[in-house]
Amino acid sequence: MSETNRKFLLAKRPEGTPDRDTFELVEEDRPEPGPGEVTVRTLYLSVDPYMRGRMDAGESYAEPWDVGEPLQGGVVGEVVESNGASFEPGDVVTGNLQWADYATAKASDLHPVNPDLGPISTALGVLGMPGRTAYFGTREVAEPKAGDTFVVTGAAGAVGSVAGQIAKLSGARVVGFAGSDEKVAFLEDDLGFDAGINYKQTDDYRAALDEAAPDGVDAYFDNVGGPITDAVFTKLNVDARVAVCGQISLYNAEEMPMGPRKLPQLISTRARVQGLLVGDFAPRFEQATRDLAEWVASGEVQYRETVTEGLENAPDAFLGLFEGENIGKQLVKVGERGE
Amino acid sequence: MSETNRKFLLAKRPEGTPDRDTFELVEEDRPEPGPGEVTVRTLYLSVDPYMRGRMDAGESYAEPWDVGEPLQGGVVGEVVESNGASFEPGDVVTGNLQWADYATAKASDLHPVNPDLGPISTALGVLGMPGRTAYFGTREVAEPKAGDTFVVTGAAGAVGSVAGQIAKLSGARVVGFAGSDEKVAFLEDDLGFDAGINYKQTDDYRAALDEAAPDGVDAYFDNVGGPITDAVFTKLNVDARVAVCGQISLYNAEEMPMGPRKLPQLISTRARVQGLLVGDFAPRFEQATRDLAEWVASGEVQYRETVTEGLENAPDAFLGLFEGENIGKQLVKVGERGE
Repeated sequence: MSETNRKFLLAKRPEGTPDRDTFELVEEDRPEPGPGEVTVRTLYLSVDPYMRGRMDAGESYAEPWDVGEPLQGGVVGEVVESNGASFEPGDVVTGNLQWADYATAKASDLHPVNPDLGPISTALGVLGMPGRTAYFGTREVAEPKAGDTFVVTGAAGAVGSVAGQIAKLSGARVVGFAGSDEKVAFLEDDLGFDAGINYKQTDDYRAALDEAAPDGVDAYFDNVGGPITDAVFTKLNVDARVAVCGQISLYNAEEMPMGPRKLPQLISTRARVQGLLVGDFAPRFEQATRDLAEWVASGEVQYRETVTEGLENAPDAFLGLFEGENIGKQLVKVGERGE
Repeated sequence: MSETNRKFLLAKRPEGTPDRDTFELVEEDRPEPGPGEVTVRTLYLSVDPYMRGRMDAGESYAEPWDVGEPLQGGVVGEVVESNGASFEPGDVVTGNLQWADYATAKASDLHPVNPDLGPISTALGVLGMPGRTAYFGTREVAEPKAGDTFVVTGAAGAVGSVAGQIAKLSGARVVGFAGSDEKVAFLEDDLGFDAGINYKQTDDYRAALDEAAPDGVDAYFDNVGGPITDAVFTKLNVDARVAVCGQISLYNAEEMPMGPRKLPQLISTRARVQGLLVGDFAPRFEQATRDLAEWVASGEVQYRETVTEGLENAPDAFLGLFEGENIGKQLVKVGERGE
């Protein structure tokens, strides 16, 4: 166990797209747990698009980070020291911790990771926040039914890939937008999507949808926003449901993004458009994790992870999300268990 | 009873804002009812913003009118001739008929008007389609609750004025946007709105809302769209509901109207935005009419009508909707009962 600790601070608020200068890596002594706390050694760190919002000062659903303060994110780690807390050294836990080699936390802010459910990294992906987001966003908001056409953007990502497979389980035709031929092959060949659209190979998203979703769109799970979403809205059927989970294409905008006004389309379709935050479903997380674990075990839900090695490369892993560099869940591997 | 009939045809499709040349008044012989039909003499004709959509060729929820074909709308009229139909001469009926002095219809396409519920003209307003739109849009889509702040645009119009009063009955704080000081006085003094905003006297809608809706917006009933709606969206509270009933500010646009993208705001608020067509609630129309008639009788819902005299002036009455010339329901008085 190292006596020193590395951690990332928010060096400055990004204007538009963040870059390496947004982050500052500092060294300090390994933190000591206070009474009732543990020290956790980071094994995997999650980077997620929503973190971009926390870098800005404005109001959002997640509290803004202060400049000079540590960044935080989902972590799977190993307890290395316990100061009278309910976890023991060696326990594998997950929680919202610093982007660091080590972090202290109260036991009540951590959850045990059950290694019987799958590799421990899945607690940050298919069996963690992204999986649960897909689960509730699909089942409770987009609500695909048998025979429906379900469209998802960011379809090869941590949330979209699971959302599409859950929609498939409900009997819908599933169409996904993704940013490379490799991703489209992943959707169609590995995940069983009915059609994938490589949005970087077309600028006529409407024509691509006319082909992939000839009966229109009944349920839309949006992780991306912008012009793809504009095209999907022109294809919404009567009583369609739209789950707005993310809008990654807009997060780095420096000015208010403009687009075609969509409310008129909602009148003729009576579509319902609803924002989604997984935290609202917290009382039902256990059920979601149980269902997802079953589907993973049965092979009904497949997942993939893109793993960047080394805490020092966490900023690159984060920045890569906006370039679509990941397939499936983007993780940063910080340490090995039992090292 | 006249032997001739006047009726309006769609002379041409408007490009942008319609004008008098959109309409052509023609004369013909008074139509004879076929078997099972009646001839109805028009007493009141309704003009409504949604008719603008029927003037265009594109897809919409209401079938487009063909050029050279008669315009249609809600009519209250008197049966003057019956050819074996279930109505008798003298019966007062309502239905979707031509913009004409006389029109024939099957009895099954007409509904009796109950004069005990109120003046017969109310079958086109507070006790008709606009009242029912307000009823279902407020209670089933915007869902104001006690203590909520409810905002409505087109607040002095046929739908908005009733929507605001229904929201008031549920215990919400009610704020209305309208286009003149006279309308604002109507909202505040006659209808019991908590605040009215004359949008023609401010261009900082957000600042006006900061004052009128200091606790944010929980329920929004939108008849207008455009920049006012943009401002309301910036004030939406968590779990807000938006009923998209109309977008009159956009109906005459010649190019795709652009505006600030709103989906990001839905994530942080988890707001639900839903289009509204009153026809979807047809199985429950009777209940709505009964409730509305009770509220009108008790004085809990007030209504006003703006009456234009003469069929020949129907186009002006329609065009005036887009200038905000009406307070309450805009009607065209075409004939007197028993003439």
